[in-house]
Amino acid sequence: MNRYDVIVIGCGPGGYHTAIRASQLGFDVACVERAAQPGGAGIRSGCFPSQLLLHASALYDIARTAKHAARGIDCVATLHLARMMDHKAAMIDRMSRKTHGLLRAQRVRLISGHARLAGAGTVIVTRTDGTQQTLSAAAIVIATGSEPIPLATAAFDHARIIDSADALSLDRIPRHLVIVGAGAAGVELGSIWHRLGSRVTLIERSDRICNWLDAELAATLQRALIRQGIRIRLSTEVVGLDRRSDRVSVQLRSAEASRTTSTVDADTVLVAIGRRPSTAGLNLSSVGIQPDAPGALPQRKPQGGSRGLWVVGDAAGGPMVMSKAEDEAIACAEQIAGLPGFVNYAAIPQVLYTSPEVATIGKTEQELRLAGVRYKIGRYPLGANANAMIRDTPEGFVKLLVDASTNLIAGAHLVGTGSADLISQVAIAMEASMICEDFARICHPYPTGSEALRQAAMAAGGWMMHA
Amino acid sequence: MNRYDVIVIGCGPGGYHTAIRASQLGFDVACVERAAQPGGAGIRSGCFPSQLLLHASALYDIARTAKHAARGIDCVATLHLARMMDHKAAMIDRMSRKTHGLLRAQRVRLISGHARLAGAGTVIVTRTDGTQQTLSAAAIVIATGSEPIPLATAAFDHARIIDSADALSLDRIPRHLVIVGAGAAGVELGSIWHRLGSRVTLIERSDRICNWLDAELAATLQRALIRQGIRIRLSTEVVGLDRRSDRVSVQLRSAEASRTTSTVDADTVLVAIGRRPSTAGLNLSSVGIQPDAPGALPQRKPQGGSRGLWVVGDAAGGPMVMSKAEDEAIACAEQIAGLPGFVNYAAIPQVLYTSPEVATIGKTEQELRLAGVRYKIGRYPLGANANAMIRDTPEGFVKLLVDASTNLIAGAHLVGTGSADLISQVAIAMEASMICEDFARICHPYPTGSEALRQAAMAAGGWMMHA
Repeated sequence: MNRYDVIVIGCGPGGYHTAIRASQLGFDVACVERAAQPGGAGIRSGCFPSQLLLHASALYDIARTAKHAARGIDCVATLHLARMMDHKAAMIDRMSRKTHGLLRAQRVRLISGHARLAGAGTVIVTRTDGTQQTLSAAAIVIATGSEPIPLATAAFDHARIIDSADALSLDRIPRHLVIVGAGAAGVELGSIWHRLGSRVTLIERSDRICNWLDAELAATLQRALIRQGIRIRLSTEVVGLDRRSDRVSVQLRSAEASRTTSTVDADTVLVAIGRRPSTAGLNLSSVGIQPDAPGALPQRKPQGGSRGLWVVGDAAGGPMVMSKAEDEAIACAEQIAGLPGFVNYAAIPQVLYTSPEVATIGKTEQELRLAGVRYKIGRYPLGANANAMIRDTPEGFVKLLVDASTNLIAGAHLVGTGSADLISQVAIAMEASMICEDFARICHPYPTGSEALRQAAMAAGGWMMHA
Repeated sequence: MNRYDVIVIGCGPGGYHTAIRASQLGFDVACVERAAQPGGAGIRSGCFPSQLLLHASALYDIARTAKHAARGIDCVATLHLARMMDHKAAMIDRMSRKTHGLLRAQRVRLISGHARLAGAGTVIVTRTDGTQQTLSAAAIVIATGSEPIPLATAAFDHARIIDSADALSLDRIPRHLVIVGAGAAGVELGSIWHRLGSRVTLIERSDRICNWLDAELAATLQRALIRQGIRIRLSTEVVGLDRRSDRVSVQLRSAEASRTTSTVDADTVLVAIGRRPSTAGLNLSSVGIQPDAPGALPQRKPQGGSRGLWVVGDAAGGPMVMSKAEDEAIACAEQIAGLPGFVNYAAIPQVLYTSPEVATIGKTEQELRLAGVRYKIGRYPLGANANAMIRDTPEGFVKLLVDASTNLIAGAHLVGTGSADLISQVAIAMEASMICEDFARICHPYPTGSEALRQAAMAAGGWMMHA
């Protein structure tokens, strides 16, 4: 059968969630994937393997530094990088197989090959053996994900000049890893290799790391990374990479008035300056889209034929995180079905899995000030939280931003162990339009990190009890 | 000054929260504590030290069993019990000092001594040197906490027959620790000593452990404990303890029809059959209360003088957990101030810090069936959750119970690592009267345990995507 209700191009998180939800809603769905296994960058070369190495490297770091000696537990740890990487590869395969199994259980047809549009409603798939197959559907969903942006001055050679996917598969620990770009990928991948033994230098063009973060959060993370031993050079541009036999010489120029130049030598340079939608070879012009035009792939807007062309996930731009791709996927499938699918972009949490963890949702202080919104701050230091005392993770704080006129939570900015799960509590409160006073009344188990959220909410109301 | 607006008797979690909140509301507050330092059982001999040892023993167990060898981290661990106990003692002192500091900062007068009522509005405090002081106040709050119930057949000797406080201060690892009572204290303290090397046997009179738990949750925890090597004897009563020079012989009788008897030998017997309000020496009859009468200390009801007599926390009965004491304390202070202080007993989460962790809120399946409520179940296995795969904590599940007529969440029963922080998300949804369909629409960061809650909510609606 070559005729479907919905064809999804790409089987990463944006794609497989669209396919599953569309199938649940009664559509015949095909999902075309050019890689040998489903999962996309999210599962095979991005988020998931990064998390595996972040977790494993954190375990090693804790064991190596005998962090729990004061608690009566002496520990001698040895690292086996090859075993860690084998475990990562095995877990990726398991997750791909699981994804495959979910698609099969939901009766989604997984088609292997490279998809190219051929006018409205038509997709030509070229298999690895060169044979072709023409598919048609009323709705076509582009979920082709994203790809790392290279430096203007040097292409990736995937050996000494590497991208974020390469950085998750190194077979030795770099002596000096220079990372260009101190964004999410830079600080996470830098943390992994620093914990495993590399000297790590982050080079960042702007005057702060992770510049989309609330400034106080970014400054706190920056101090923590520096204290751990990661070097950070801000306001610094890379003007050239000089590849030698045994190293790469990185030429730097200060982005500030002085514009002084300098050089650092690295055995590996990771370029992590951002990602861009991956749409090469899709033949978008056949449906009247100029792919290089800004906003060429508008999110959530049907285009083209009767049910048209849709774009979800990283391919649609916006924050390139799996949770956003998943939500766009669900909304897309529901809209194709005529249901009121909807993504609340104001309540999508974002997390950096650094030590300490950073989690954020809603507006930053800077955004609120810019918008002229009067706000109250509820701040609580984790050092005063019983759970953090017990687990020896006192670093960080919870900061709630509360609209002073409505008492609704406008944003939350967390730094500290466990923030990734705590931020969801704020997501729920925001989605429920719960006022901060009611958020301060939630009863949490003792001792948990959740209590810190309550104390911060109390603080916003002027009655914090635990600090 | 001997005249206050509010006198709080007892400076544990119920007491100090009442005192702080009352002071925030503008009252002159005294808090009388007979122990040398504030904190009560919650901080000094119960919850907090128990958590310290649960965490430390779990760290040791993970290191000892080289749980992360597959991830490339070999580890050789050594346990130093004395250092673990010293650390615990230092942390208790730190938490007591912190509590003292909070009371001072909030201008609460901390008075050391034993308090006894002398009619409405009057409290006589006897100091350790025998001198007395008479205090008066319009409102008196009893926050004297609870104490372990001894076996009818044998008193505590605090050496071989011990209570839960003793079990947190052992200076050697028992070879065989027999625990009478498989409730919260039994399974938590049993887990600590089992991880540290003891053989542990739980003796339970009823036919299941933790019989207030949702039956499926209790059964899952029971299987996990048995798999870890903890022995559990259900439907078994202790009919006598025979103390020998080097051990205690525990005489057991089957509570079932057969009523067979047997004996187990232990070097330490922990009696953990429950706690009762601790009101001895309060001279309750001076205010017209017969302390032995059932419900003698009614919760939340003013009694006696103008602003009367109040009872909060364990002394008031009900679930003896710190979060409930804290909420009653806040409500009590606010009611004394004429504000609408309120405790929603339907949304108080309870947690067992076992491996895996158990967290529960709202109604159990058994309670819903008994009440004739039609409900849907949303269940999701943690084995399918990416975060649990990454952290190698696949054991457990999330179960949401959803009222079929209102679509509101009636209860949630979680077993698995991280449940203690996840249950707060359900507390927020319940307090916000969020319907399950909306709970299924929350966007969570990837990869987190929170995603399991979303999947369970989807499951209740028939559209689970990840399993």
